[in-house]
Amino acid sequence: MARNLLRAGHQLAVFNRTREKAEALEAEGARVAVSPEDACRGAETALTMLADDRAVEELHLPAALETGATHISSSTISTALVRRLAAGHAARGQGFLSATVFGRPEAAEQAKLLVVAAGAPDLVERHRPLFDAIGRQTFVAGPEPWQANALKLCGNFMIASVLEAFGEAFATLGKAGVDPHVFLDAMNAFFASPIYANYGKIIADGRFEPAGFALKLGQKDIRLLLEVTQECASPMPLASLLRDRMLAGMAQGQAEMDWSSVARVSARAAGL
Amino acid sequence: MARNLLRAGHQLAVFNRTREKAEALEAEGARVAVSPEDACRGAETALTMLADDRAVEELHLPAALETGATHISSSTISTALVRRLAAGHAARGQGFLSATVFGRPEAAEQAKLLVVAAGAPDLVERHRPLFDAIGRQTFVAGPEPWQANALKLCGNFMIASVLEAFGEAFATLGKAGVDPHVFLDAMNAFFASPIYANYGKIIADGRFEPAGFALKLGQKDIRLLLEVTQECASPMPLASLLRDRMLAGMAQGQAEMDWSSVARVSARAAGL
Amino acid sequence: MARNLLRAGHQLAVFNRTREKAEALEAEGARVAVSPEDACRGAETALTMLADDRAVEELHLPAALETGATHISSSTISTALVRRLAAGHAARGQGFLSATVFGRPEAAEQAKLLVVAAGAPDLVERHRPLFDAIGRQTFVAGPEPWQANALKLCGNFMIASVLEAFGEAFATLGKAGVDPHVFLDAMNAFFASPIYANYGKIIADGRFEPAGFALKLGQKDIRLLLEVTQECASPMPLASLLRDRMLAGMAQGQAEMDWSSVARVSARAAGL
Amino acid sequence: MARNLLRAGHQLAVFNRTREKAEALEAEGARVAVSPEDACRGAETALTMLADDRAVEELHLPAALETGATHISSSTISTALVRRLAAGHAARGQGFLSATVFGRPEAAEQAKLLVVAAGAPDLVERHRPLFDAIGRQTFVAGPEPWQANALKLCGNFMIASVLEAFGEAFATLGKAGVDPHVFLDAMNAFFASPIYANYGKIIADGRFEPAGFALKLGQKDIRLLLEVTQECASPMPLASLLRDRMLAGMAQGQAEMDWSSVARVSARAAGL
Repeated sequence: MARNLLRAGHQLAVFNRTREKAEALEAEGARVAVSPEDACRGAETALTMLADDRAVEELHLPAALETGATHISSSTISTALVRRLAAGHAARGQGFLSATVFGRPEAAEQAKLLVVAAGAPDLVERHRPLFDAIGRQTFVAGPEPWQANALKLCGNFMIASVLEAFGEAFATLGKAGVDPHVFLDAMNAFFASPIYANYGKIIADGRFEPAGFALKLGQKDIRLLLEVTQECASPMPLASLLRDRMLAGMAQGQAEMDWSSVARVSARAAGL
Repeated sequence: MARNLLRAGHQLAVFNRTREKAEALEAEGARVAVSPEDACRGAETALTMLADDRAVEELHLPAALETGATHISSSTISTALVRRLAAGHAARGQGFLSATVFGRPEAAEQAKLLVVAAGAPDLVERHRPLFDAIGRQTFVAGPEPWQANALKLCGNFMIASVLEAFGEAFATLGKAGVDPHVFLDAMNAFFASPIYANYGKIIADGRFEPAGFALKLGQKDIRLLLEVTQECASPMPLASLLRDRMLAGMAQGQAEMDWSSVARVSARAAGL
Repeated sequence: MARNLLRAGHQLAVFNRTREKAEALEAEGARVAVSPEDACRGAETALTMLADDRAVEELHLPAALETGATHISSSTISTALVRRLAAGHAARGQGFLSATVFGRPEAAEQAKLLVVAAGAPDLVERHRPLFDAIGRQTFVAGPEPWQANALKLCGNFMIASVLEAFGEAFATLGKAGVDPHVFLDAMNAFFASPIYANYGKIIADGRFEPAGFALKLGQKDIRLLLEVTQECASPMPLASLLRDRMLAGMAQGQAEMDWSSVARVSARAAGL
Repeated sequence: MARNLLRAGHQLAVFNRTREKAEALEAEGARVAVSPEDACRGAETALTMLADDRAVEELHLPAALETGATHISSSTISTALVRRLAAGHAARGQGFLSATVFGRPEAAEQAKLLVVAAGAPDLVERHRPLFDAIGRQTFVAGPEPWQANALKLCGNFMIASVLEAFGEAFATLGKAGVDPHVFLDAMNAFFASPIYANYGKIIADGRFEPAGFALKLGQKDIRLLLEVTQECASPMPLASLLRDRMLAGMAQGQAEMDWSSVARVSARAAGL
């Protein structure tokens, strides 16, 4: 994402807790900051992409940013934290947007992410060039930043439900003596989706390492979605099922495996 | 399917309980049979496509077919019935294959169905020209006819799980104030699947009539799948969830609506 | 049950597929019949208690009974079969009642069963002395025999839900380092129910053999209940959960263990 | 609880945000404190009973208590907060116990609560006279205070699962035309538990107001339990089901009704 912003002609100061990662961008014109505060100094806009709520909170970004600057949060974090950030930035006369993204590392490299933005409409419009620099399409979830996170979490839920469905179908067909690759071929012909092709193959092959996205992170996202359902009073029994199945995988030592390894929970329950 | 078999040069006798439907094929060269027995008279192969177990059982096809002939069953029926049919045909020296299909009416018209066949390998190979005449690709599930039905039921389960996932996500996003079409656009960009595009639009628009596939039929298929899980001792909690959600829809008067109307169950539970 | 009917002064012909079981009653005045037909000869009332639908169907009782006689079915069988039996007996001018029972073998020996009867009110009243001879209390579920079976299946569902709840709680408390017997003692003090005391102890001790009631039979009853929910269009997600959990236990070799061994499924999912 | 402590001869300072509630105890010898700090002044032991995490946190009890004093927390709060309290009190040289209770208001009045205590064994023993003053039996969950809360949450889960089971059974039997009171009578005869008698009657009568325990509080407890399952990596699918069903009830305006009104969710899903 940083590289694509540089390529689009933006001036960047970059900070990463693993300094080497930041330095890799130095040759392409980025200034390597020594701290989040340093990165924010004089910045018009701060874009953050971190692993979870805690990592975002530890930045204390409202305090680090200057008045009038805007924070764009791309992390998949809780809607509650997004609301707290929105309030914190507003109190200091700063702008705040949420701009979550869909896409794997290769999509990020190729500036082909899908960007889901939310926040004050004029602020969203003003930052569209940034979204265009990192993604192939931008969707606007609504006028409140947390709405982008609700949409992002629902998107991850859509993927997770495919993983569980594949896991259950493969387990039953496994016991029925049907070759999993025949089922996968049929589903690929039918759904014609790269998401199905990718995850279906990982599960059919049983190759859950290295993880593209760790089970513990996927499970965390489903938990964040369940918090949204609590805020919205909107029950999601399938999300609850996913939470428990992923938790069962974690209890069996799969926390660092790819989240598609939730399929193993179905296999084990079937005695496979 | 009959039309495409005629076009491929096969001689057909056709029978439908609604005689007009059979007569529509007369101009294209089919002989209109007055009964299943009449249709089977002298036939080398009988292909059946019916709504449910009862309709198939009422044909008494093993008795109607001649020795040496082959029955190809394309109906989405229970694996238990398929095994009974296999035994019945074997006892009379007849061949038996299951050849279930995926695809909507337009796909059937354009000979673009996906065919999932199962049965004795030589018998499957001998009938490949028939499958090629009606579909764009043929998958072989295994040497036992019921395996094709297990795979077909798992395929319908994969679709149903998308319907439920969409229903839950739309309900939560609805309460979160996110425009459902924005979510749908993002999912279309991400999954890039015609199945998602088609059903996602029906649900986002709330247009469940006329039904492409009735909820009561979808629910029946999930029940047939649950019978398979019982035979295979392979629990499928997501299938159970789908059964109950679709049943809730039926209890609320949606039996004849499209099966994607299962989304209404999530909407109601959220108080929408 | 037979012994208590004899003690109450009734004349009995007894039949059991295991002849020794019937002969044990000879000394107490029962006539040992050589077949179901023989047992029915000249009988005013036939009371049947069998393991499942198939065993009941194989009796062909409507054909065996004389006109004017009454069949009282005490088996935990499907409501669909009960309706077929009701029709079969009615067609031959015979009476038919369902009189299911709750209680363990000791309760049966001590004539302390709970009887749940259903059928034509006058027929129920006429046979009350029989119910009083075998049980301590009789409940009338309604005018249709299958209603007694629906109630009985719901009762077994109530027990099964306690087993699952105990299993989940023990698993979590096990991982939390809480002694299961402390939890059990607290629940016994709180619920003050012999059902909780009995099953809670089996689960806390992990002694699932010999089975008081086999897991495969408990799972069958939940499936019969799910058929009722289908007939009544009344979703029961907890029943579906129980079905799957018990099926998972069966897939892991617990079919012949006590049905409270469903608790092992929770323990395994927690990595215990 | 305060009254029973006074009767047992203890000296009490009492504080309640609704001052009248505290003043009601003045005649029986209690000193009415004007603030939590005032209540803690000079106290050997502070016993707190509050509605939720927030209410407990707002007391800042570690700061209010004197060194060497002990805090006994009786609230049904999160295990995470209990661990934070334990650390906070330890840092100030204060003792800390969790002593949750089971029982309805009448049981509290009659000193018949069930007390579930946890914490350092010597500290538990030293405070047994207090537990004996308010309850009829004390159970020790373990050496860590949060273990008492885990046990208490599991106990509430056991009750909630009965509510859901009753709700589903009543819905199905309602559609089957079986009188709910007949089913309830049978269950009372079978389970012989005051918990079943009490809640079964409320549900059969449909009298969910006034609430003995509000649905929103019951749902909160299940959520706290789900947090425990997360900490312990122990999936509880029945707890997840309860969470969603109670949330559905809240989405339909039942938040302030008795938590047994979760039965209405099943009734609605069945179209009743």
